[in-house]
Amino acid sequence: MKEIKVIRNEQPKSKPDGDRLGFGKYFTDHMLVMDYSADQGWHEPMIVPYGPITLDPSAMVFHYGQEVFEGMKAYKTADGHVCLFRPDANMHRLNQSSERISIPEVDEELLLDGIIALVREDQDWIPDGAESSLYIRPFIIATEPGLGVRAAREYKLMVILSPSGSYYPEGIHPVSIFVENQYVRAVRGGTGTAKTAGNYASGIRAQEVAQKQGYSQVLWLDGVEKKYIEEVGSMNVFFKISGEIVTPELSGSILAGITRDSVIRLLQSWGHQVTERKISVEELFAASSAGTLEEAFGTGTAAVISPIGKMKWDSEEITISGGHTGEISKKLYDTITGIQKGVLEDPFGWRRVIL
Amino acid sequence: MKEIKVIRNEQPKSKPDGDRLGFGKYFTDHMLVMDYSADQGWHEPMIVPYGPITLDPSAMVFHYGQEVFEGMKAYKTADGHVCLFRPDANMHRLNQSSERISIPEVDEELLLDGIIALVREDQDWIPDGAESSLYIRPFIIATEPGLGVRAAREYKLMVILSPSGSYYPEGIHPVSIFVENQYVRAVRGGTGTAKTAGNYASGIRAQEVAQKQGYSQVLWLDGVEKKYIEEVGSMNVFFKISGEIVTPELSGSILAGITRDSVIRLLQSWGHQVTERKISVEELFAASSAGTLEEAFGTGTAAVISPIGKMKWDSEEITISGGHTGEISKKLYDTITGIQKGVLEDPFGWRRVIL
Ligand SMILES: Cc1ncc(COP(=O)(O)O)c(C=O)c1O
Ligand SMILES: Cc1ncc(COP(=O)(O)O)c(C=O)c1O
Repeated sequence: MKEIKVIRNEQPKSKPDGDRLGFGKYFTDHMLVMDYSADQGWHEPMIVPYGPITLDPSAMVFHYGQEVFEGMKAYKTADGHVCLFRPDANMHRLNQSSERISIPEVDEELLLDGIIALVREDQDWIPDGAESSLYIRPFIIATEPGLGVRAAREYKLMVILSPSGSYYPEGIHPVSIFVENQYVRAVRGGTGTAKTAGNYASGIRAQEVAQKQGYSQVLWLDGVEKKYIEEVGSMNVFFKISGEIVTPELSGSILAGITRDSVIRLLQSWGHQVTERKISVEELFAASSAGTLEEAFGTGTAAVISPIGKMKWDSEEITISGGHTGEISKKLYDTITGIQKGVLEDPFGWRRVIL
Repeated sequence: MKEIKVIRNEQPKSKPDGDRLGFGKYFTDHMLVMDYSADQGWHEPMIVPYGPITLDPSAMVFHYGQEVFEGMKAYKTADGHVCLFRPDANMHRLNQSSERISIPEVDEELLLDGIIALVREDQDWIPDGAESSLYIRPFIIATEPGLGVRAAREYKLMVILSPSGSYYPEGIHPVSIFVENQYVRAVRGGTGTAKTAGNYASGIRAQEVAQKQGYSQVLWLDGVEKKYIEEVGSMNVFFKISGEIVTPELSGSILAGITRDSVIRLLQSWGHQVTERKISVEELFAASSAGTLEEAFGTGTAAVISPIGKMKWDSEEITISGGHTGEISKKLYDTITGIQKGVLEDPFGWRRVIL
């Protein structure tokens, strides 16, 4: 592991109350920064005190959105260790996102070393609460000043850490979903496969509409036919129909979630059949009528598993698993969080102990 | 006009050489800033010295791309005045873009007053060169710190100015265009109608591919069927086929260009028929074979009119107007720049004299 330079924060903040962490509200005492210039490439990763950054108003990220990010977590295990979950997959996806947006790739190992060093530096910030964790947000922005649409020649990579509370303070429970007919998140050939800022800006409006109607998340349909299911909010999505588990295929417009991949592998290891294919919203509603839509859930780093209890499409609303958390959702949630927290075996080698 | 507070720059920069301005490389001594908070709304527009801004690394613009911008120009007229061109249209479009991205709307009149005051403040920066101008870039970014995808509660609006050289230092001349078959800029239901950062990030990759093959711009096809023409680079696009002028209709995925609108109105006033409709790339190539594709040009604030001399689609390449600037392109260019520069009548009241 490469030695990473540290400039220690001499004025550490006081830590927030563990019961009120929420998500993404507090940040730790340090951050990792690394700059890119056309001459030097990515150079001099450093851990420095968490604090504001200064950019020219013409910095390209403010105008043309050249940005990519990742989201991952550090967990405290039952026996006092600290783990990451499949961090190599996040490093790899960061580079894949960058490729789509013409951002120069980073050395995945070097970045992961930097992240590990950063988490170690701020280990006191990792919350103890049963389902809480330290959220890790690596991101890259185009910092070169100047207008004109093209790939920048200067970038800044940063990693910031946010202690976050349980996604389900009262235990895992189902969400209600609104099938979005008007707004589109992404289309094949666009940026939907990349974790880049513009995709999320695009979704805010639809999310607001759904929430006003009392639904917590948007179910995105494909941008071409507005027929096939893509994702739910910022999660991938799975359904159990007549005993078979199905999830939208990676068709070129959805993000290849790491939780999605973990879920597929776990389910297969349990003997389930998992099919990646096109799933129309019509098929789902028909299955619901026929009584064969047995379960539905979203998957993502934030919530791990998010059971879906209700789904609204045009004027129809269906209830899934009687509005309760389905059996598979519960088993997946317990298994993945169990692996993350070190209380279960780790048959796939997903856990990376860093402390 | 409302009085806008000015904090004058006591250390003005030396001005760049008028022959080497290029586009978007130099910025003037001042900028306009205005902040938004949930409590106060947009408040206290101010002209301050041009300089870096400081943001928390968790500022939402860096993660979820909530950003909109505009592009307009100030021109020095033959008789020493300074004009804007249809600035009210830019103010209005800024708000329309904001609506799509859930950014709170600004008072269009107040913002325009601020821009005018800013241009007056930095009037010495407006270049004299025949086809040079002062490029004006208003933009809004979400500044609220914190992670989690939702509309921010804090924003910063800024307006920066960049003296820019002629787009055609050697006189208007045609560009070559690459029809993009793989990457998609926007789709109906997405953000294509808004001037927002993510749309441009999405296009950078395709632009690089086109340039590597020797073409200067990308011609975007619709994201659904990859059949119909949408835009060219950051311009709207027009064709003359058998004497009729056609341009893609505003179908929900293209930007409603202000130059596009001006071109339509001018052409109509000259007695041309202009049709806004779907235009397939196949139709264009067939028209070219049949000898009826008479002219093609892009329209936008930067180049005003950009004649298209060559177009490549898969393995076919066609030449348009013999690779020269067509008659209508030339007439439109001369007329619009003539109105902008105050050497021609302004029958539509597009010019706004500000000095
Ligand atoms: C759009 C989108 N889809 C899916 C996911 C789930 O991916 P992962 O399981 O890697 O967290 C995320 C976020 O994390 C996302 O932003
Ligand atoms: C995507 C896109 N299309 C078209 C245009 C042309 O618009 P306008 O004529 O208002 O400059 C622009 C830019 O200015 C643009 O960014």
